[in-house]
Amino acid sequence: MKSELATKFADPSRGVYFIGTTPPRSSIEDEQLDLISQKLLQRLDNIEVDGLIVYDIQDESSRIDKPRPFPFMETHDPRAWSKRLKDASNKPVITYKSVSSRSTEEFTQWLQEAWDDFDIKDIVLVGSPSSEGDIKLPLSEAYATLGKMPLDFNLGGVTIAERHAKKKDEHLRLINKSEAGCEFFISQAVYNPQATADLISQYAQTCKAQGEAPKRVILTFTPCGSAKTLEFMEWLGISVPVATKNRILGSETPLDESIKICRSALELIMETALPDGVPLGLNIESLTNRKEEIDASIHLYRLLKATLDLKLAEQALL
Amino acid sequence: MKSELATKFADPSRGVYFIGTTPPRSSIEDEQLDLISQKLLQRLDNIEVDGLIVYDIQDESSRIDKPRPFPFMETHDPRAWSKRLKDASNKPVITYKSVSSRSTEEFTQWLQEAWDDFDIKDIVLVGSPSSEGDIKLPLSEAYATLGKMPLDFNLGGVTIAERHAKKKDEHLRLINKSEAGCEFFISQAVYNPQATADLISQYAQTCKAQGEAPKRVILTFTPCGSAKTLEFMEWLGISVPVATKNRILGSETPLDESIKICRSALELIMETALPDGVPLGLNIESLTNRKEEIDASIHLYRLLKATLDLKLAEQALL
Repeated sequence: MKSELATKFADPSRGVYFIGTTPPRSSIEDEQLDLISQKLLQRLDNIEVDGLIVYDIQDESSRIDKPRPFPFMETHDPRAWSKRLKDASNKPVITYKSVSSRSTEEFTQWLQEAWDDFDIKDIVLVGSPSSEGDIKLPLSEAYATLGKMPLDFNLGGVTIAERHAKKKDEHLRLINKSEAGCEFFISQAVYNPQATADLISQYAQTCKAQGEAPKRVILTFTPCGSAKTLEFMEWLGISVPVATKNRILGSETPLDESIKICRSALELIMETALPDGVPLGLNIESLTNRKEEIDASIHLYRLLKATLDLKLAEQALL
Repeated sequence: MKSELATKFADPSRGVYFIGTTPPRSSIEDEQLDLISQKLLQRLDNIEVDGLIVYDIQDESSRIDKPRPFPFMETHDPRAWSKRLKDASNKPVITYKSVSSRSTEEFTQWLQEAWDDFDIKDIVLVGSPSSEGDIKLPLSEAYATLGKMPLDFNLGGVTIAERHAKKKDEHLRLINKSEAGCEFFISQAVYNPQATADLISQYAQTCKAQGEAPKRVILTFTPCGSAKTLEFMEWLGISVPVATKNRILGSETPLDESIKICRSALELIMETALPDGVPLGLNIESLTNRKEEIDASIHLYRLLKATLDLKLAEQALL
């Protein structure tokens, strides 16, 4: 059966809305997983989501010299977490997969099991965090491997506007990923909206020149309530302009300030993307397990979803 | 089991959103009903609704001398239509019931069957369209009858701001209906937002004086694309200010104009109701079966829902 999300993604008049989450660390016993998933899904009771996104967290220390502000820990299998959330919520789940550290055979097996045993229909493949280090399976080969299998996954890719700001070629990566089968893209957390707007604008222009419809770009946003979270964001490679940093660190209510910043960022990106015909979506996550940041992520979700929904509804009237 | 809507209504931080609909006329054969309900529910595929509202259409000719612009026709049993929609969509349905023309015994039987046979949990009782004519069961007695039955309906009442504009006592009717068990109110279609804002403001003041939390008010909006629909609205008792009438009739795109008018109306009402702590909801309907008015009602739904969602999300940040 075709992914239900693929049908939604194909309708540019609508937004699509996700909550991003990571599997619990592997030291957590199976008995506790039910409780954790229930708690997560309860938070979704009061918001309308099209689905969830489950990350595949890797140790990215090869990418950067600085120590990771929150230490890296192995997690439970994202496929199992994804299935648990899907079964408990009856919502589709997009499952990330980091491909670089395993062989083609192992990746083939991962895909087959994801489809057969974990009922996964929507995946995002992620390449190596850096070009250094031991890459057993480059992303391009992973796409080729997937393309040879008779499994009708709804395939997405990641997009990193920060890369565009430096190398000016991220829009071409999106085109290449589209050719490799990607039907949608999910951004890294946005704190530098101009970089994202620039990327989307050039992507739209290139699509237009090639006579292709742009794929949907799902924008990730995350609240930031402390200096340590900010440090973690920067460690992850999220670009935060200095004025934005100063606003958050100088505010008496940094979480609320970060929500305002995210909302302005979305407004700026919408102004570029919607007239250019690039369908948008949102993915809201909390980077930490702090209760106030998790609660803020739900506020942020409601605010940004309503902002995009309203803009789309206004646009439909023009 | 408690109504799922009652839980949503009890949370003032969220809006609640409905599509209103009438059962097909009784001359339509049973075989066609499936098709009609499918068509209706397909339109809901691209919007997020908390549920549906099924009206109980009465011949209101006792209320007014003028001929009805669209002739009155008997419909299928609203309970059966409600159950069909609920079963096909898995969404809750609020079912209207006009009580005045039948005896207490008949009403008791209606309620019991609604609960047992039609799985109805949410009802709105409607009194006589005018104080003239043969009233077998006044609304107050209907509430008393319901109160004696051990059925835990989520009960709502109608509210007519136009009555308030004339008699200045509609807010007291809401208080009385609350005492009789009403947990929410559904307005007549709003085209005179000041009358609705006045009613809500006085209702909120009275609640405050009595130390009661105001009940949720679900505002009905409907697009209007032609002189005939406008005439029908006025026949139904909907007050349309002359400037609004002129805007609609003078526009080259009257449907779009009416959508703009509804949106401004909602903004005005929100400005009064939300600071006063009156939780709101929306009910969008098309008064005719014309395709363009039905399509416009879906546009209107998306626009007004996003408008209210955004305001509520902004309010949560204050």
